[in-house]
Order: sequence, then C-alpha cells, then structure tokens
Amino acid sequence: MLDAYPREIALDRGLLVAAIDALAACAQTCTACADACLAEDMVAELRTCIRTNLDCADVCAATERVLTRQHPSRELLQACLAACRACAEECERHAGMHEHCRVCAQACRACEKACSELLAALQ
Amino acid sequence: MLDAYPREIALDRGLLVAAIDALAACAQTCTACADACLAEDMVAELRTCIRTNLDCADVCAATERVLTRQHPSRELLQACLAACRACAEECERHAGMHEHCRVCAQACRACEKACSELLAALQ
Amino acid sequence: MLDAYPREIALDRGLLVAAIDALAACAQTCTACADACLAEDMVAELRTCIRTNLDCADVCAATERVLTRQHPSRELLQACLAACRACAEECERHAGMHEHCRVCAQACRACEKACSELLAALQ
Amino acid sequence: MLDAYPREIALDRGLLVAAIDALAACAQTCTACADACLAEDMVAELRTCIRTNLDCADVCAATERVLTRQHPSRELLQACLAACRACAEECERHAGMHEHCRVCAQACRACEKACSELLAALQ
Repeated sequence: MLDAYPREIALDRGLLVAAIDALAACAQTCTACADACLAEDMVAELRTCIRTNLDCADVCAATERVLTRQHPSRELLQACLAACRACAEECERHAGMHEHCRVCAQACRACEKACSELLAALQ
Repeated sequence: MLDAYPREIALDRGLLVAAIDALAACAQTCTACADACLAEDMVAELRTCIRTNLDCADVCAATERVLTRQHPSRELLQACLAACRACAEECERHAGMHEHCRVCAQACRACEKACSELLAALQ
Repeated sequence: MLDAYPREIALDRGLLVAAIDALAACAQTCTACADACLAEDMVAELRTCIRTNLDCADVCAATERVLTRQHPSRELLQACLAACRACAEECERHAGMHEHCRVCAQACRACEKACSELLAALQ
Repeated sequence: MLDAYPREIALDRGLLVAAIDALAACAQTCTACADACLAEDMVAELRTCIRTNLDCADVCAATERVLTRQHPSRELLQACLAACRACAEECERHAGMHEHCRVCAQACRACEKACSELLAALQ
C-alpha cells in the first residue's frame, strides 16, 4: 500500500514496513498467547503473563495504526519497545513449559528489534 | 500459534486461520487507504471512502481479536461481512483512479470471502 | 461534540448519544472485569467470563467508534447486542460472588438496551 | 469498578480514575473531531488535524485499557502526553473557526494534565 501513497514518504520505507509487519504479528501473537495461557491448567501462575500480553497487544495495535499513517513518534516507539520487552521477558520465563509463550517471546523480540531500528533511523 | 493452544479447537483450523489473516490484512489496508485518500488532492470527493475505510478497519480489528480467541459469533461475522462489502463497493468506485482504493477493494473482497466461508462452516 | 458536527445528523441524537455512552461504559467495565476476574483466587473457574469480557470489550469499542462516525449498521448493532447479552449472562452467573461481575452485567444490560433502542429506530 | 478489584491497588486511586476517565473522553472526542473535520467544506486544510486526531484516539484508547489493568508504564504515559499535546496544538489552530476543534483541544489538554499528574505520582 505504501507504493500507492500519493505523496512523498519521509521515512525509510524498508524500516517502516518491517516495523508495521512486526507490530501486526506481535499484536496478534500476544492476543493468542493470552488466550492460550487462560486455557492452561496452571492459569493461576500465568496471570502476570496474561496481563502483560494484553498490554503488549493493545500498545502494538495502536502503534501499528499510527505507523501505517506514517506518523512515528519517538515516544510511542519507546512505549512500544518497553511493552515488547516486558512481554518478552515474562514469556521467556514460561517458554520452556509453554510453546505459545516461546513463540510469543520471539514475536515480541522481533517487534522490539524492528521498532528500535526505526527509532534509531528517526534520530 | 493455534498449534500451541492447550485445548481442542472446535473450529475448522484452516478456515479460522484464513479468516484471521484476511481480517488482519483488511484492517491494515483500510487504515492505509483512509490515510492515502486523505492525502489526495481530491480529498473532498473521498470523504465517504475515508469513513467507510475507518469503519471497516475498526470492525475487522475487533473481529480479528475475537476470532483469535476462537469465539466466532455468527452476528459478528455478519457485521464484518457487511463492513467489508460496503468498503469494497465504495473503494471499487475509485479503483480506476486510485491504486490504493483498488488494492483496498481486493483486501475487502478477500476478507468478505474468508469470513463468509467461516460463517458457512459454523451453520 | 455532536452539536459541533457541520452537517445534518440523520439519526435520533438522543438515542445515538445514549448508545455511544453505554458502549464506552460497557467496553471499559468489561476490560476491568476481565482483569479483576484474573486476580481472583478462583481464576480457573472464570476463564469463560474473562474471554467473554474481552470479546465484549472489543466489539463495544469498535461499535462506539463506528457510531461516533454516525454510521450505525444494523449488522454491527446486532453483533454488539449478541456480545453484550453473552457477557451479561456469563457475568450474572458470578454476580452473587463477585461484585465486579455484578456491575459488569449491569453495564452489559444497559448497553444491550441502548443498542436495541437505536436499532429499533433504524428500522 | 476499582472498588471491586480483589487485590490491593498499588496506585493512587483518584489519579488513576481521573486518568482513565480523561483518556476515554479524549479518545472519543478525537474520533468525533476527525469525523467532523472530514465533513467540513475546507477538509483539505484539515488533513493534518484529522491524522493527528486519529493518532491521539488510538494512543489514548490503548492507554485507557492498559491503565484499566492498573499497569501504567512511564513510557506509555509519555507517549500519550506527546499524542495529546500534538493534537491539542493542532486543534487549537482551528479552534476559532471550528467548535469541534475547540472542544477537542480542551479534551486533549485535560487528558495531558491527568496523564502527567499520574506520571508524576509514579516517579
């Protein structure tokens, strides 16, 4: 869709597309991980993971929309980095036991990387 | 992520994944199309398209989340079909002139198809 | 804000405002109820309630945005009614034990009423 | 709903509730302002305002959800402050001509204030 945008794009297209894709994947994976955690027998031990998943999904979804409008604020990218990092750390603690947490931690780390590369290009 | 879900999945996995992917693509494409319409010189003639894009993006994003939790309500799929159809029809009117509307109409039609196939399997 | 809208509004303003307010309250209450359920000792028995809360929050938030753009589709209102009814029924089952479920069931019923009144006025 | 939360709340309740309410109001007002701008004859001059409104609505809605889960990250509050400030500044430029921009600027400033007070209490 970026190729069909009628004006010049001020950002590095490759970094922007990579960030948008990583955000979309991360938001969806976090939503799925929260739901899978909820279905585990040991759900009581996954409360923090579920909340962190839901937070990360909300922040990534909002950031995805803002970046799709090519409006990357430094502050929003930093908030997104913080949410992805917190969720990755929490999911990594359960990654050995729950495959969905392992996959989710990877998606969060990939998103953290894509957002920090875009952030570095802004500065 | 569905493979990592700790319980049985009551739905056809292929149809569910296809619908979730189509919804994610449609939500993002509609957000981008609204923004590209807004940047066109003839924005005044694209007001309806922008509103319809924003509606479709919101309904698809919510449906994507609900389906990711494997909770497809017939009513929500029907609402999503209606939003995709309305947005496809509106974008098709501008598809000859605006590449972003042409691509967006395709994403809406693909999403309409994926949701109606999932809906048919529910009934 | 509706008074500041620069064009005529085709809908009954009172019903529209009532629906938007009820949707905003319901989305927020469902988000809070999901989080309170998650913090309960008996979280394992509240899994369905949490999922239903999250679904209802997502559908109400999307419907609130669409109605704020004065674009009420019959299908979306029906999807919202279904989500509110499902969440109210689930929360009512726990209302005797959990105050947050009692309050949430009320918010869902109020939202169901406001949306069905707006729907009736559309037809 | 906070009174029904089954555990202790680590934050100042008054500041938390004020921020959640201001975020909900700001998200809705920005959505409405974007739509009203789109309906103006001079829509072409309001493009930046519409985009800034949509960004602010998305960031505030995500922050509202995260705060409802009592998880205020400093970074997210800072991103929200930046979005509210940008939207207030843009709307203030049109406030003399468009009542919806005047009201929206007020909602953004109120939200900026509530978020910065919560942020100050966190530090």
